[in-house]
Amino acid sequence: MSDIESIILGNEKYAENFTSGNLPPHPSKKIAVLTCMDARISIKEVLGLKVGEAHIIRNAGGIVTDDALRSLIVSHELLGTEKIFIINHTECGMATFKDEDLQRRLSEKYKSDATDIKFHSFGDIEENVRNQIKKIRSSPFLSNITSVNGFIYDIRTGKIREVQ
Amino acid sequence: MSDIESIILGNEKYAENFTSGNLPPHPSKKIAVLTCMDARISIKEVLGLKVGEAHIIRNAGGIVTDDALRSLIVSHELLGTEKIFIINHTECGMATFKDEDLQRRLSEKYKSDATDIKFHSFGDIEENVRNQIKKIRSSPFLSNITSVNGFIYDIRTGKIREVQ
Repeated sequence: MSDIESIILGNEKYAENFTSGNLPPHPSKKIAVLTCMDARISIKEVLGLKVGEAHIIRNAGGIVTDDALRSLIVSHELLGTEKIFIINHTECGMATFKDEDLQRRLSEKYKSDATDIKFHSFGDIEENVRNQIKKIRSSPFLSNITSVNGFIYDIRTGKIREVQ
Repeated sequence: MSDIESIILGNEKYAENFTSGNLPPHPSKKIAVLTCMDARISIKEVLGLKVGEAHIIRNAGGIVTDDALRSLIVSHELLGTEKIFIINHTECGMATFKDEDLQRRLSEKYKSDATDIKFHSFGDIEENVRNQIKKIRSSPFLSNITSVNGFIYDIRTGKIREVQ
């Protein structure tokens, strides 16, 4: 079975028992979560959140990029979220390389200039979480957000701990 | 109970039954999914995917922004994904406004210039999905991706359908 056939079959099973078709677009807990794309993170389950309760934004690293800010502004301004949770995690791929090394590798491999791609790789994970909180706090368009909390998710234990 | 207390309690329950601490970082199905941050979408369940099988990238709209390309390049180049699924959805908030209206509203409300924020609002959802596929296909650094498929998820029925 191809991946597409598998996904269509998986979706058919999902739709058979689907009961949440009347949820409103506004997240009921007024929460927006930003986390990493990592395949090992089932973010709603990790945080005990249910469908409909929170926006989920994910990218490589769980970084407050301009695009994450775009999503957070839409989330806050148009859909009423007020609280932001940033979840980075242990053993993140973004802590395993340096931007300039990946830029060079891509430029050589694909014969196309990759030196202007900012990858947001990082070293210290706690410092990285604090930096993401600062970026949110420095956006004028998110100045009415009531709380921004940062956590580190432990890939090995399933536990989160808050970064102070 | 505060949201933080609720999330910490939810996580404690999750960690009690946690059994997937030994998964590798490489998605086992070599799939990267890009979808919207919408609170109503439980994307892994929608597609019948399990933890560890796919990278999940989410932003407002499920748009191939520069940041989504950054994530997809990291996913492909460093973590071996080869197949990309783009899932947009019915009744998306990004189809309810125009960029210039939101830019003006933010600029006036926060007394700060928002006219340079590209929000990627869209009109026709099928056309939007096709445009995202094109953006992936035009990245030199994703030229070895073997398949890019686009779907529309129906918020009311839980069903996906492929966009041709």
